[in-house]
Amino acid sequence: MQTSKNINIVGAGLVDSLLSIYLAKRGHKVKVYERLPDMRKISMAAGKSINLALSDRGWRGLEAVGIADEIKKIAIPMYGRQIHNKDGSQVFQAYGKEDQAIYSVSRGEINMRLMDLAEQQPNVKIHFDERCTSVDRASLTANFENNTTHQHTSSKSDLLFGADGAFAGSRLNLQLSSDRFEYNQHYISAGYKELIIPPGPNGEFLLEKNALHIWPRGSFMMIALPNMDGNFTCTLFLPFEGEKSFANLTTREQVKKFFDEEFSTAVPLMPTLLDDFFANPTSSLVTVKCFPWTFDDKIALIGDAAHAIVPFFGQGMNCGFEDCVVLNGLLDKHGDNWSAIMDEYQTLRKPDGDAIADMAIANFIEMRDKTADKKFLLQKKIEARFAAKYPEKWIPFYTMVTYSPDIRYSTALKEGQRQQAIMDKVMATADIETKWESEEVEKLILKEIQ
Amino acid sequence: MQTSKNINIVGAGLVDSLLSIYLAKRGHKVKVYERLPDMRKISMAAGKSINLALSDRGWRGLEAVGIADEIKKIAIPMYGRQIHNKDGSQVFQAYGKEDQAIYSVSRGEINMRLMDLAEQQPNVKIHFDERCTSVDRASLTANFENNTTHQHTSSKSDLLFGADGAFAGSRLNLQLSSDRFEYNQHYISAGYKELIIPPGPNGEFLLEKNALHIWPRGSFMMIALPNMDGNFTCTLFLPFEGEKSFANLTTREQVKKFFDEEFSTAVPLMPTLLDDFFANPTSSLVTVKCFPWTFDDKIALIGDAAHAIVPFFGQGMNCGFEDCVVLNGLLDKHGDNWSAIMDEYQTLRKPDGDAIADMAIANFIEMRDKTADKKFLLQKKIEARFAAKYPEKWIPFYTMVTYSPDIRYSTALKEGQRQQAIMDKVMATADIETKWESEEVEKLILKEIQ
Repeated sequence: MQTSKNINIVGAGLVDSLLSIYLAKRGHKVKVYERLPDMRKISMAAGKSINLALSDRGWRGLEAVGIADEIKKIAIPMYGRQIHNKDGSQVFQAYGKEDQAIYSVSRGEINMRLMDLAEQQPNVKIHFDERCTSVDRASLTANFENNTTHQHTSSKSDLLFGADGAFAGSRLNLQLSSDRFEYNQHYISAGYKELIIPPGPNGEFLLEKNALHIWPRGSFMMIALPNMDGNFTCTLFLPFEGEKSFANLTTREQVKKFFDEEFSTAVPLMPTLLDDFFANPTSSLVTVKCFPWTFDDKIALIGDAAHAIVPFFGQGMNCGFEDCVVLNGLLDKHGDNWSAIMDEYQTLRKPDGDAIADMAIANFIEMRDKTADKKFLLQKKIEARFAAKYPEKWIPFYTMVTYSPDIRYSTALKEGQRQQAIMDKVMATADIETKWESEEVEKLILKEIQ
Repeated sequence: MQTSKNINIVGAGLVDSLLSIYLAKRGHKVKVYERLPDMRKISMAAGKSINLALSDRGWRGLEAVGIADEIKKIAIPMYGRQIHNKDGSQVFQAYGKEDQAIYSVSRGEINMRLMDLAEQQPNVKIHFDERCTSVDRASLTANFENNTTHQHTSSKSDLLFGADGAFAGSRLNLQLSSDRFEYNQHYISAGYKELIIPPGPNGEFLLEKNALHIWPRGSFMMIALPNMDGNFTCTLFLPFEGEKSFANLTTREQVKKFFDEEFSTAVPLMPTLLDDFFANPTSSLVTVKCFPWTFDDKIALIGDAAHAIVPFFGQGMNCGFEDCVVLNGLLDKHGDNWSAIMDEYQTLRKPDGDAIADMAIANFIEMRDKTADKKFLLQKKIEARFAAKYPEKWIPFYTMVTYSPDIRYSTALKEGQRQQAIMDKVMATADIETKWESEEVEKLILKEIQ
């Protein structure tokens, strides 16, 4: 058991709520400062990443606080990718074994459940509408401005967690005042816009419910995730500039022509397409890498504030929840030795944060481009066949990242690179298309894998 | 001729002063806001990069405003590297042809001359002690806090240049408020500390005056540059952590032992070594890359504010002055079309800023490590021999970067990589040590260079 501390969490949503529960259960007094109003009382503006894909690392985080079962009730399993080719044909690509799925959940729903649970802890207090303007490192004081009253307040604590997202206000002062603070923010050339496929006349799903739908088109793509009410949230990922880009979609005629050409099978399912396209924002996609994550053994960055990533592996929330799980394990291990906790937390998690950031960017290319590529699909088939026969020798890359919380992201990345090098040789075999199921190919993999 | 504009320059030293002269000569009304007090009236604290190495890109910038000859009088030519090996032996490595040199100048001297010249322009006004706290992009207002009175003032202008260094206050608001702003700050693992070799009893230089001295020691090094008064400014570049590091030099005994072991020939020349070591700060070394460099066709970053680099190629000031030269050329080309000026400025200079940043980091490894490596020295001899015989086929890399302002940094980097690939093959030749002057080696280079 740890000595009780006053802990402030500067939050912006999911990770801060979960973290507050972990800390409260150990007897700490926790204040959470949320930038947003209480979403349980006020309905929030949509149009920005309202769906998330929950997978095993995230489930593990929720299980530890006992709400995995409850969340599963409002989550839709997606067992694979449903690829919508330009010619109208469709292909299903399983995400793993038969029962393995990632789960489409509403960000708002899961956030509200976590807030409820946090507030059920007697030693957690959530303050809403409080935007963190800065953190004073020397006095461990967080400064806030209230979004409605514009009143400025300050709060001191024994420990402070910055969990306020990619553009964390809690991080800014630290990064400006800390010599040798490594910082990198990189935007990919594509942005995104959310659109919608509503349910049919009887509330039915108009696409296969239990799949993540992808319209891969090379340099861009559209995806769709199911919601409990029969809607699909569609997201168009498209370069900001260039021939096929948001810059060239400025009139209703241009948008209509583009969708008719590229997504002809989806257009009939999107009655409000043109209105939504111009009503919803076009948002950018950032990766943030920084270091250190902890300061003076009293301040720690966690979640997107430490490692903002692009959404293409569906791991942003899962990674943030895993931060909490790892931290929780270190509280067990080191007790009151916060210096050891902070040190091991950032030493352990930084390589994993970097790894999932890089894998998330690489997965954009896989989703938008390779999922429509016959050679890539054949490679995945060969891998799946080999993995089924030799499960102790080959865990598919997607499985390591998504369904294997005991495998670190950094390990998955390295192992994935090793597998790809092997498969490059396999795919270079003459007539691989005809003999992919042959003993020759199997032997080649067995030889290379040593 | 351009239409006269009100232009604010947020400055911190050299580049802002030079830029103000370029702009004033075209009839613009220029206000320069300096963070520091007027160094012509108050003597500044030393101990941080008081020497600079001026080379051809920098000279070109000074020539255009007519002060190159005046600065040359206070500059000491260094014709090559004087390598001080651990065993006490010395080797001289020329920086180019016989008359080619880089020039050691005092940062303060050159800055004061530039300020004098700027103030001789009737349409330049320098405000000292004014720290830029932020720039409001919408209203083109720069906000300042006076360092002595702490009074806050604001200034609007038609155009604004942010030239206030690696941690530019003028850049911060822009980077926080601009969606898709690319930003990367990276610290190398080594820091630096300035030390001194004073003149001899009769004011004489105690080391060869016309050389840049290097004590290369693998993972670290000391260098020394001559000053007009007979001093040498020494700089120790050493990792912050590790076996041989600043972290392990915390007592006078440790420092003495370290210097006696590593720099035994220099120690007798450094009578105040131990006092200086603990009196002078240990400073970090940052590379900053960002983009865009211009905003709304009215704001531009320039010098270190756009591209802070580590000092190992001696190109920081030279690159900043070259920014001014390039910009000046664009003022000729585009006249009042500031949109074209801003656009071409950042499009042209960004790849060159990135290139010199990368080359500067690579040159640390060359200086601290390779200059003591026999194979590297042989390679340089082979290159020099070939370049002398076929000057139209081979311009040495150092010459491209340092003495060839008509060759862009980005071109020099690419050409240097091509040369290195060729030399890798040459150096892999059996018995290269004995036949480096042979026709076989010459033919090999001629074949590879095609």
